[in-house]
Amino acid sequence: MGEHTKRHTIEWHDPLATAAAVKEMSGLEALRAMQRGEIPLPPMTLVMNMRLVLVEEGHVVFSGEPGEYHYNPIGSVHGGYASTIFDSALGCAVHSTLPAGDGYTTLDLHVRFIRAITHETGRVRCEARVVNAGSRIAVAEATLYDAGGKVLGHGTTSCFIFRGRG
Amino acid sequence: MGEHTKRHTIEWHDPLATAAAVKEMSGLEALRAMQRGEIPLPPMTLVMNMRLVLVEEGHVVFSGEPGEYHYNPIGSVHGGYASTIFDSALGCAVHSTLPAGDGYTTLDLHVRFIRAITHETGRVRCEARVVNAGSRIAVAEATLYDAGGKVLGHGTTSCFIFRGRG
Amino acid sequence: MGEHTKRHTIEWHDPLATAAAVKEMSGLEALRAMQRGEIPLPPMTLVMNMRLVLVEEGHVVFSGEPGEYHYNPIGSVHGGYASTIFDSALGCAVHSTLPAGDGYTTLDLHVRFIRAITHETGRVRCEARVVNAGSRIAVAEATLYDAGGKVLGHGTTSCFIFRGRG
Amino acid sequence: MGEHTKRHTIEWHDPLATAAAVKEMSGLEALRAMQRGEIPLPPMTLVMNMRLVLVEEGHVVFSGEPGEYHYNPIGSVHGGYASTIFDSALGCAVHSTLPAGDGYTTLDLHVRFIRAITHETGRVRCEARVVNAGSRIAVAEATLYDAGGKVLGHGTTSCFIFRGRG
Repeated sequence: MGEHTKRHTIEWHDPLATAAAVKEMSGLEALRAMQRGEIPLPPMTLVMNMRLVLVEEGHVVFSGEPGEYHYNPIGSVHGGYASTIFDSALGCAVHSTLPAGDGYTTLDLHVRFIRAITHETGRVRCEARVVNAGSRIAVAEATLYDAGGKVLGHGTTSCFIFRGRG
Repeated sequence: MGEHTKRHTIEWHDPLATAAAVKEMSGLEALRAMQRGEIPLPPMTLVMNMRLVLVEEGHVVFSGEPGEYHYNPIGSVHGGYASTIFDSALGCAVHSTLPAGDGYTTLDLHVRFIRAITHETGRVRCEARVVNAGSRIAVAEATLYDAGGKVLGHGTTSCFIFRGRG
Repeated sequence: MGEHTKRHTIEWHDPLATAAAVKEMSGLEALRAMQRGEIPLPPMTLVMNMRLVLVEEGHVVFSGEPGEYHYNPIGSVHGGYASTIFDSALGCAVHSTLPAGDGYTTLDLHVRFIRAITHETGRVRCEARVVNAGSRIAVAEATLYDAGGKVLGHGTTSCFIFRGRG
Repeated sequence: MGEHTKRHTIEWHDPLATAAAVKEMSGLEALRAMQRGEIPLPPMTLVMNMRLVLVEEGHVVFSGEPGEYHYNPIGSVHGGYASTIFDSALGCAVHSTLPAGDGYTTLDLHVRFIRAITHETGRVRCEARVVNAGSRIAVAEATLYDAGGKVLGHGTTSCFIFRGRG
């Protein structure tokens, strides 16, 4: 590609090994094991340069630092970056409420982009909480902040819960 | 990280050079120049292994091939992958309606995940069309398909249009 | 309330009798029976001055004529009017795909308001189609038009399907 | 319609007189004047049997009591009821942040229905707060509760702000 080409290398472990380990634990145990590095982080976390900074039942915080390689064609970080961190934080907030043997899948993700994210934004922080944990459906909402506490976006999700798949 | 570590390297060009070139053209010209490789693709396109396969006024198709490095912790491709391809296709569909000098920003993205995407899904295809191109706000919708034509997801967006910034 | 007061009276039949009749039929049968007037329309249909104008499997059209009594405090028809017609058309499109014994409940409704609706808009028409009818979840989308075919809004929904409750 | 017919009559004042009065005031003044009964409530409020119970800057609470005339064909209160109360509370929360001369229009409404509402639910309460009041776009979120504090639904909106139309 020539001299102006930049490079970034992602290194990861087998995500199916992570998924198999996650399945044996409650959501809270699995997320805390990932946070402590006892289970390898899933590769998309590395692609997005994100990490899990807080895990409680129904409440999860991710942070992330977007790079130049997350840019869109119109001069800012691609909306897919914020969407990915919202999807992670919202899904994990729901996951944190589930006992071992239960699983979930995300039905939808709705992200409202409030301020543009650029290279200069630095570290962002996505705080998610469960609004309602029903027997079949869980609803969660999250807010994305910059380091100074300014709101960058808001997101919500509905997840479908699979019960008793132990 | 040891012997089980896998690696993927992304190589890209300066996205601000792409953004500067894009600004001088109509949306249709800019997207077609990217499709023909005359303007470097923005890095997020490469991170997600996507490409622009069709560009018409108000109608854009992206395809993408998710890899293992796009996995989440629960055994499938992260929802951020589909969200990114939806955001790209929907935003570019809106962009394709804009004359030179106008710009846009995405206000929100709503993605409905219909079937899980895994490593075996292969190439996916996101077809977006503009529902309404207003003077200030444009609305677009898109459907994501697998290679066999099965619906994987549905997405919608609203974009804010900046007029007359030439 | 004095001489400037206006009045509108709604007359309806017991909606639980309608619901009981609906339960015995497939979705398509129930909707067609309502369209032909063999089952009383549910009261909200009358409150919103709506009617079912087309029913096919996975495709439903409602029309409605908003009145002054549907106004909000800022000089136009309340967003709840369009929301109600979208919710009806989208839910009925999903319902039209269900055999007798199955039921559904709406998980979420997302409405994008494109043009304001006023007293002068006249009759509006909401065309809904099912995007995907899964075993547990169905997704539908709809467009709202004025009499001249201008797009007034766009909506989507996800419904949860209860199987085999006959 | 025969002996089983039920009737409900709505009485209202000219909503354009309300809209004209609202235009002269800040959002907070207009909403408080409606709450105190100094400006007639808009008719849709009466159609839905709702009232404004709390107005602060960026924070609004509506309550409502659905009746049998708000029923859908499947045995519960129509989703349009909750949608209308969400649209009212969210829009008024945004309105409460606007000075005299500014206006707003709702771009989209997203409602997540968490528990079914029936005749027996009684009074519901919708609490809305502004997430971000930008110069052009405001985002708000709201939660709907029953009298016992159970969550019935969650909603979000984006509104477009018209500045300086005094």
